[in-house]
Amino acid sequence: MPDNSNYFPLISEHSLFDAAILANGDYPTHAIPQTILHRTHPLVCCDGAGSEAISRGLMPTAIIGDGDSCPNDVKSAYAHLFHQVEEQDDNDLTKATRYTLERLLSTAHKAKIAYLATTGKREDHTLGNIALMVRYYRQYHIIPTLITDYGNFTIAQDTSLFETHPRQQISIFNLSCSSLSGEGLRWPPYPFQEYWQGTLNEALGDQVTIHANGLYMIFRNW
Amino acid sequence: MPDNSNYFPLISEHSLFDAAILANGDYPTHAIPQTILHRTHPLVCCDGAGSEAISRGLMPTAIIGDGDSCPNDVKSAYAHLFHQVEEQDDNDLTKATRYTLERLLSTAHKAKIAYLATTGKREDHTLGNIALMVRYYRQYHIIPTLITDYGNFTIAQDTSLFETHPRQQISIFNLSCSSLSGEGLRWPPYPFQEYWQGTLNEALGDQVTIHANGLYMIFRNW
Repeated sequence: MPDNSNYFPLISEHSLFDAAILANGDYPTHAIPQTILHRTHPLVCCDGAGSEAISRGLMPTAIIGDGDSCPNDVKSAYAHLFHQVEEQDDNDLTKATRYTLERLLSTAHKAKIAYLATTGKREDHTLGNIALMVRYYRQYHIIPTLITDYGNFTIAQDTSLFETHPRQQISIFNLSCSSLSGEGLRWPPYPFQEYWQGTLNEALGDQVTIHANGLYMIFRNW
Repeated sequence: MPDNSNYFPLISEHSLFDAAILANGDYPTHAIPQTILHRTHPLVCCDGAGSEAISRGLMPTAIIGDGDSCPNDVKSAYAHLFHQVEEQDDNDLTKATRYTLERLLSTAHKAKIAYLATTGKREDHTLGNIALMVRYYRQYHIIPTLITDYGNFTIAQDTSLFETHPRQQISIFNLSCSSLSGEGLRWPPYPFQEYWQGTLNEALGDQVTIHANGLYMIFRNW
């Protein structure tokens, strides 16, 4: 068994995270992201997602933004939750991540953070948000999991073990590996040069091992 | 004015394409992709998207696949439309593209092809499909436009001119440029190393020029 940071159990309603961050994409409708959203504390929302969360019975720990995208009644009733982070160069997802790490977690190192509602709507945002997971992994040394209605993305490196169920759909996105191979997959992975090359693979049993010499991203569907 | 292949007018209901390919993602709800879908001939559908198109009053030119994902009544009534392309290594979108180029267009070179319903649902498919646009541009020498409910992606290279409207949201994804700059944008682009760095830009007026020495992808919202 590799050390803990290279083992990725299945994500489920019971998965535990150190924090959840809710963005402005499609609000989750699947039971797994919805349950994680309701169970995880602290919950930090990107601006407009704050009023969305409140309207659905959640109580955000903090809402990052000036509230310009929130209705006035929400903005005044929950004024104490709003925090402006002045960084012209970063978007709300990064501001929310920095706030969470700097103000809400006792140790930021290797914090497990669930990212929700980061996809859907504009596809350039989806691409950007997925790419930001890689940035946070590298720059903030956290373990981000991007959770959607269809599955989840995790960032991993070197040799890692992924819990799966038989026939689970898996896609592997090579980020920086010149060497990449694996076990437990229907089609043997290789050091993919393009994102489309590693999609549409399938787990054979209850675990997949990836051997690599750099960073890669794994998508497992539900 | 650069030569025709380096000029990208706004995509609208009136845009003309040599062919349209319909995939299995979210069926379009926005007027622009819906109109393009209804006006463009030939229309080639990926397997299950064929019965979806028929149920919405469209008549596909061809449906690529074995019909396994189509209801039996559709499969038998429209049996003449189904074409199996035997290529284990390629997915339906690539099979549909090859069929279109080899069988339906008099010249494949620089064919303008609209790709619809390639996003939504599983995000690993979205990433893969967007990456395939780059493959088709490079390998098949076509001009692909990936059209969604939120905007469109185009692949371009070197110096190119993009028609815009003032305050239109634009994202630039650098694929292979070591030099990249531009005019007409709110924030000056640079040779981005990561996908998130080029998102959330904005056109100042009615055109944006990108100067670069390689390939890049542009997203313009509606």
